[in-house]
Amino acid sequence: MAGNSIGQFFRVTTFGESHGIALGCIIDGVPPGIPLSPEDLQKDLDRRRPGASRYTSPRLELDRVHILSGVFGGVTSGTSVGLMIENTDPRPQDYSEIKDTFRPGHADYTYEKKFGVRDYRGGGRASARETVMRVAAGAIAKKYLLQHSGIQIRGYLSQIGDICCELKDWNLVEENPFFCPDASKLEQLDALIRDLKKVGDSIGAKITVVAENVPVGLGEPVFDRLDADLAHALMSVNAVKGVEIGAGFSVVNKRGSENRDEITMQGFQSNHAGGILGGISSGQPLIAHLALKPTSSIRVPGKTINRQGETVAIVTSGRHDPCVGLRAVPIAEAMMAIILMDHLLRQRAQCGEPQPV
Amino acid sequence: MAGNSIGQFFRVTTFGESHGIALGCIIDGVPPGIPLSPEDLQKDLDRRRPGASRYTSPRLELDRVHILSGVFGGVTSGTSVGLMIENTDPRPQDYSEIKDTFRPGHADYTYEKKFGVRDYRGGGRASARETVMRVAAGAIAKKYLLQHSGIQIRGYLSQIGDICCELKDWNLVEENPFFCPDASKLEQLDALIRDLKKVGDSIGAKITVVAENVPVGLGEPVFDRLDADLAHALMSVNAVKGVEIGAGFSVVNKRGSENRDEITMQGFQSNHAGGILGGISSGQPLIAHLALKPTSSIRVPGKTINRQGETVAIVTSGRHDPCVGLRAVPIAEAMMAIILMDHLLRQRAQCGEPQPV
Amino acid sequence: MAGNSIGQFFRVTTFGESHGIALGCIIDGVPPGIPLSPEDLQKDLDRRRPGASRYTSPRLELDRVHILSGVFGGVTSGTSVGLMIENTDPRPQDYSEIKDTFRPGHADYTYEKKFGVRDYRGGGRASARETVMRVAAGAIAKKYLLQHSGIQIRGYLSQIGDICCELKDWNLVEENPFFCPDASKLEQLDALIRDLKKVGDSIGAKITVVAENVPVGLGEPVFDRLDADLAHALMSVNAVKGVEIGAGFSVVNKRGSENRDEITMQGFQSNHAGGILGGISSGQPLIAHLALKPTSSIRVPGKTINRQGETVAIVTSGRHDPCVGLRAVPIAEAMMAIILMDHLLRQRAQCGEPQPV
Amino acid sequence: MAGNSIGQFFRVTTFGESHGIALGCIIDGVPPGIPLSPEDLQKDLDRRRPGASRYTSPRLELDRVHILSGVFGGVTSGTSVGLMIENTDPRPQDYSEIKDTFRPGHADYTYEKKFGVRDYRGGGRASARETVMRVAAGAIAKKYLLQHSGIQIRGYLSQIGDICCELKDWNLVEENPFFCPDASKLEQLDALIRDLKKVGDSIGAKITVVAENVPVGLGEPVFDRLDADLAHALMSVNAVKGVEIGAGFSVVNKRGSENRDEITMQGFQSNHAGGILGGISSGQPLIAHLALKPTSSIRVPGKTINRQGETVAIVTSGRHDPCVGLRAVPIAEAMMAIILMDHLLRQRAQCGEPQPV
Repeated sequence: MAGNSIGQFFRVTTFGESHGIALGCIIDGVPPGIPLSPEDLQKDLDRRRPGASRYTSPRLELDRVHILSGVFGGVTSGTSVGLMIENTDPRPQDYSEIKDTFRPGHADYTYEKKFGVRDYRGGGRASARETVMRVAAGAIAKKYLLQHSGIQIRGYLSQIGDICCELKDWNLVEENPFFCPDASKLEQLDALIRDLKKVGDSIGAKITVVAENVPVGLGEPVFDRLDADLAHALMSVNAVKGVEIGAGFSVVNKRGSENRDEITMQGFQSNHAGGILGGISSGQPLIAHLALKPTSSIRVPGKTINRQGETVAIVTSGRHDPCVGLRAVPIAEAMMAIILMDHLLRQRAQCGEPQPV
Repeated sequence: MAGNSIGQFFRVTTFGESHGIALGCIIDGVPPGIPLSPEDLQKDLDRRRPGASRYTSPRLELDRVHILSGVFGGVTSGTSVGLMIENTDPRPQDYSEIKDTFRPGHADYTYEKKFGVRDYRGGGRASARETVMRVAAGAIAKKYLLQHSGIQIRGYLSQIGDICCELKDWNLVEENPFFCPDASKLEQLDALIRDLKKVGDSIGAKITVVAENVPVGLGEPVFDRLDADLAHALMSVNAVKGVEIGAGFSVVNKRGSENRDEITMQGFQSNHAGGILGGISSGQPLIAHLALKPTSSIRVPGKTINRQGETVAIVTSGRHDPCVGLRAVPIAEAMMAIILMDHLLRQRAQCGEPQPV
Repeated sequence: MAGNSIGQFFRVTTFGESHGIALGCIIDGVPPGIPLSPEDLQKDLDRRRPGASRYTSPRLELDRVHILSGVFGGVTSGTSVGLMIENTDPRPQDYSEIKDTFRPGHADYTYEKKFGVRDYRGGGRASARETVMRVAAGAIAKKYLLQHSGIQIRGYLSQIGDICCELKDWNLVEENPFFCPDASKLEQLDALIRDLKKVGDSIGAKITVVAENVPVGLGEPVFDRLDADLAHALMSVNAVKGVEIGAGFSVVNKRGSENRDEITMQGFQSNHAGGILGGISSGQPLIAHLALKPTSSIRVPGKTINRQGETVAIVTSGRHDPCVGLRAVPIAEAMMAIILMDHLLRQRAQCGEPQPV
Repeated sequence: MAGNSIGQFFRVTTFGESHGIALGCIIDGVPPGIPLSPEDLQKDLDRRRPGASRYTSPRLELDRVHILSGVFGGVTSGTSVGLMIENTDPRPQDYSEIKDTFRPGHADYTYEKKFGVRDYRGGGRASARETVMRVAAGAIAKKYLLQHSGIQIRGYLSQIGDICCELKDWNLVEENPFFCPDASKLEQLDALIRDLKKVGDSIGAKITVVAENVPVGLGEPVFDRLDADLAHALMSVNAVKGVEIGAGFSVVNKRGSENRDEITMQGFQSNHAGGILGGISSGQPLIAHLALKPTSSIRVPGKTINRQGETVAIVTSGRHDPCVGLRAVPIAEAMMAIILMDHLLRQRAQCGEPQPV
């Protein structure tokens, strides 16, 4: 319970269901005096928006965000910021047939057992639609971090199925619907998604998020390490099953002599640590990877049970993404921004203004 | 700041440095009436203890835990439990030569830059010695979870370097110093660690933790998902660089039709989800994997800088583990226990007593 | 910062300014399965509403509450409840002349100095209009407490100026605009308020709130005592300058032999403790008193300074209550309900379902 | 549950029972680099200590505080500070006869009903002995506030029984065992306490705490107002039944024209607000009053029930204060210091370093 908030000082609390009236959030702890308008939030909302390309869900949501409080005369006033996005294209009737069925890979079963009641319309609160408010709140953090500290947060698709995408060109990321940084992979990606749509199946993905110009000193010993808070934030995103910082799981078969990042007068000689030492930012780029499972809503028939405990077959029609990873980049960026913002304020509180890198 | 606590309802707050007077913790929210004695905690403390085998650090710490409050007449009284372990074998002089040097791969540099002051003795607060109180607190949670709900939490070494260890025998895990569940790998493990000690290098490791008999319904939408809180708890352990739930990163190249765990009247047909759907426990075994980097304190000479910014060579002597992963199993179990305990109380608060599986 | 939330498990987070677009809140930790409709909240909102009588501010606000999430099929779903009330009668132009003036007794000066920016329209976030969401959230708690535990929370005007009102008739409280429980005082009250409106001055008030049928055992040692949390909640209401539990300040000249509430087989022989012993509810009626200062927005001319630091005269016109205490009863009830709800859940988490009285 | 912490950023968590092994606390969020030694804490501990004068309990406790962590090289290191005080004069046998009796006015009954188990030795966790760690933690806050911001926090006895003590001389407060600021009342106080000891009864008291040089801007809208947090902190002290800010309950019969503190170019013309406007510090002296009930442990025989529900007579022998208010001044100062410290850090986090008055 009381699990709808994230952050200690810069705290985001959200509400809203996939096919309810509206989604919203309250952002507490926003520094005063930041110029803020809906346009500042809309850019990332549009990057996340379903229906933005033929590769994602055809659900049409304009995702127009309303700033209901906390901004006065065009700048943040220091009081809590209320945001709201109305659901303009809900189609609850699409879901009436799964009302009594627990879709495999979804939260239907666990919500029903936990609460004894379940909003079955598109997964209700468990829907990835919930992330829209994360993106809106994260956009405020991103803006502040960039303007106040020069911190830049960006993400890209690093793998989908067997197709690995190397970071070759940040600019390219925004120019294709896959958030792919490697032009040589675009054709394969297109073919893969088309094929999946044809067969009605889905695929997993790996996303990488990077923050540059993070000052040294963010992160709190011992439980609220920066990496621990990042892991929490990223793992809380729908469909995420794994989080890595820097070298991640590849450290398992590395030697200490190879993995420790040696330091010279020119700085760190490598960044296996992913920008975090002892849970505290080191001034190197902060690097996190996350694994997203394939969408469970697919047309390939599958077995499940209904509320009466009987075995039934399921085919999920409706409007769904063949790869949720394709929309996860702005979400992952937002989560990293929220965590960095929170830790920037925490560091300022205890130790004073962090020094830029 | 204020980062030394974990858990919302079952809350553990710790203090203590590697070579200070003592380490301790306060555990708040312990249900009353649980029989509790130091012996209940000692077993796991001994499993974690350095000097317990020839494969780990020869530092001699008896790690005798004192229960200072919260227990009356042999049972918990519902008030905060204070625990303390005195450091009996501190050797701060071992560290005088690294007083002005930032050891690569360690938190020396980041602590110094964050706080402007640094307890250089064995890493101070950043030392893995800090985890001793996690294990003590976790033992209380483990006891309650087992007695009250039948939940059993166990971990094992699943990989070290290139040696993969399959879960073949839970009993074996407690009978060898590697926490290895596969008898056929013991010889290779022994050879690997001996070799590392000889060359003065270290290696990474992968640990797996499993909780069985977890009731359905633990975990809070949307930020405090059970997997998100587990990721936070496990990533907060020293040296951890990656956390996976269930299939983890292998989902990246899985199809939805393959990865969704179908359900029949006989239950789930697979457990790629690792026991969590939509952030809520499903009643299946809860499975988490974590990657620990190789110890950075090694005898292989390396480059670093000192406080004056000058390049210096470093060779870390002192008493160190060639693989921190070898002591991480009890720590990871403790973290999972703390999180499950917290969520058991949260579920009880909002929805009433969770039903056993 | 991050001060817009109250409650640990049953947590209410609010946003909104007096003359902004809307006010809203998110309520986290609501038990699932409670029947809930806007009508459940509207009754208390109407009791608090300005313009409800000729004795209070003539500002016309319909205060129609929208439930945006967390309710499905007519019952709470266990997910966060989003509420919103639009401001239908904002008149920001009424305030343009105080844009540069710090009204004495108001938060104008402190908000400006704290944040460097100030929403001057009716006090912005500092306006008592903010309490509308407290009442809405409190109504949910009140409903649950009554239905689930039989707890009844009611308040009344106990003093205004020199007129003391004794609790003679609970029914009367809802039948007069003063929330007065003593029919013999109604005429005096009417005369007092009329006189104040004529001279353009205001007066303080004392409110008493009582909760009956509170189970024994609510309240947490040692900082989150039930009385401490109540004091926090009640003192956080606009204009409150004092809070008492039970005998309150009258204990200062009482003897121990007189003040301790003796116990016999028939129960407690008195209730100086106000239903709380050692910070934990005793099963006796929970009694709190609060003092509200006179409205600072009055027509009697006063001295203050403007943003340039120059002395200016001020006469506050606009739509204001001659006694804010006259609208504080539903607010105080709501705050007590939120705290009791939070502690009911906390007790259930640690010790199981509290036994009814 | 989880009620043993206070403060959001500067967070104090305590443990310990009256007649247990030790009491202790963990202080999280302490800024690094503050010179700190046990002597810094001892002064206030001695002011609070029982047995310090013939007017208070003759229990002999040296209250020697040990700093177990968080200080390195004589200064705070930014990590959590662990403090411990051993109980050197416990006499649990004094309490064996009340093992089965619920002392009226005490928490015996409520603890037993809440937890099902009760440490009956001197009240266990409910004993005022618990406040020793508040004083220790508060001393750190007091030191920082004074050195960093010039904030001075002092308290005095303002009333006991019918004897009112005016603030005539701050120096006198430390020179008499009553914390009385008015030399003309010392003889009456002495006579009152002697008389109470003779008849075995007790009396209530009123304490006033004042913070000077508080910068403008501390306090968070809307629930974590500075006054709300102060009320919480002060009401959480044993025996406190009422809290006032500034004019407190006297506002009930004040007019707005009289109560609002007018402002001129020379500053505020009065301080009915007690230094807080809209929940935010105004730069004027912060003034709080608290009412403490008479000690319930008295020799005057009284009626109560035992665990079997039978009526029994009770006479509390043992070592008790005739007026707990006489030791409450350092405790109240400590609580105000903790809250101000917390809000200083909160303000710094969101808005930057507060400007001195």
